[in-house]
Amino acid sequence: MENSGQTDKGTNMPKTVVLRWGHRPQRDSRLTAHVALTARALGATGMILSDVNDPRILETIEKVTENWGGRFFLEMGTPWRKVVKGWKTNGGMIVHLTAYGENLTSRLIRRISESERDILVIVGCQKVPKEFFSEDVSDFNVAIGNQPHSECSSLAIFLDRLSQGKALESSFENAKIRIVPQKRGKKIAERRRS
Amino acid sequence: MENSGQTDKGTNMPKTVVLRWGHRPQRDSRLTAHVALTARALGATGMILSDVNDPRILETIEKVTENWGGRFFLEMGTPWRKVVKGWKTNGGMIVHLTAYGENLTSRLIRRISESERDILVIVGCQKVPKEFFSEDVSDFNVAIGNQPHSECSSLAIFLDRLSQGKALESSFENAKIRIVPQKRGKKIAERRRS
Repeated sequence: MENSGQTDKGTNMPKTVVLRWGHRPQRDSRLTAHVALTARALGATGMILSDVNDPRILETIEKVTENWGGRFFLEMGTPWRKVVKGWKTNGGMIVHLTAYGENLTSRLIRRISESERDILVIVGCQKVPKEFFSEDVSDFNVAIGNQPHSECSSLAIFLDRLSQGKALESSFENAKIRIVPQKRGKKIAERRRS
Repeated sequence: MENSGQTDKGTNMPKTVVLRWGHRPQRDSRLTAHVALTARALGATGMILSDVNDPRILETIEKVTENWGGRFFLEMGTPWRKVVKGWKTNGGMIVHLTAYGENLTSRLIRRISESERDILVIVGCQKVPKEFFSEDVSDFNVAIGNQPHSECSSLAIFLDRLSQGKALESSFENAKIRIVPQKRGKKIAERRRS
């Protein structure tokens, strides 16, 4: 798997890839696109859309990376078991985000990040296979609160906390456009064509 | 506006209401439902869906509060100018979440929360009215990173940081069901009917 192409500004983050499970093309396209964009914006290396293909997600991601830079990868269609097996073989850790898991405390985040292993973050939907909860799949089942809300929000908070707030400061190589943050109004810097 | 019905466990959060602008019924229903659920799960008192009505959002929220408790309110159809004017008249602060704003630092969060004013968080979409950026509307334009991602994720991170991580610990009155967090498997506690 490729490097994300982000400039390392000391985000304190282990290499992180998101596994999106349970995606239904058409119906979930926008939501899953938001999950992918959240993963990218918050320092993940890439996303694997398991078991299915959805050209709409690919289109969104390609357009965003073309304009906003970085090398975030999107892999589609690989069976989830194969992804999990490969990740484990390579010594990586698997974190399953679920409202049923143990609560996200600073102690838990420390345990996850101090291992210095690569992290596969599984983002499912309401009905994930029971196996996801077992040691055969997940090292940690982590709850971003115990209320129903959104897989985008769960992933965002997890990555923000994992990076101790640094992920939002990621910068991206070869961006055509970038925002110049300011208190009022909108300012964009465009790269001049050479 | 009503109280959220949440048990105050010292979330350190000012009263917070979300204003969702630019919602297109049908097309945005799921995404806006996720915004509303994120607001609820992370301690906001309620959400105002400005300018339009969408019964699907109402249905989602009513079902969730019936089962999971609390008194999160959903107001729909009020013109955004009226909401903003009313909020300002009552002395409240307005925070506009936008990728173009100033970056979310701990110093900025302190400035926002130390004022102890109620907070209206405006969550828009790509094309918000220019006025949102001006002092006529927003006290702060806050960027949750300067990359395109998701309004759910922006709101989630903002509320998590605003509450110093405590919002996720909110508990909700009169829940029929609640999750008992655990390391493996799923555990639900159901309230016995009296």
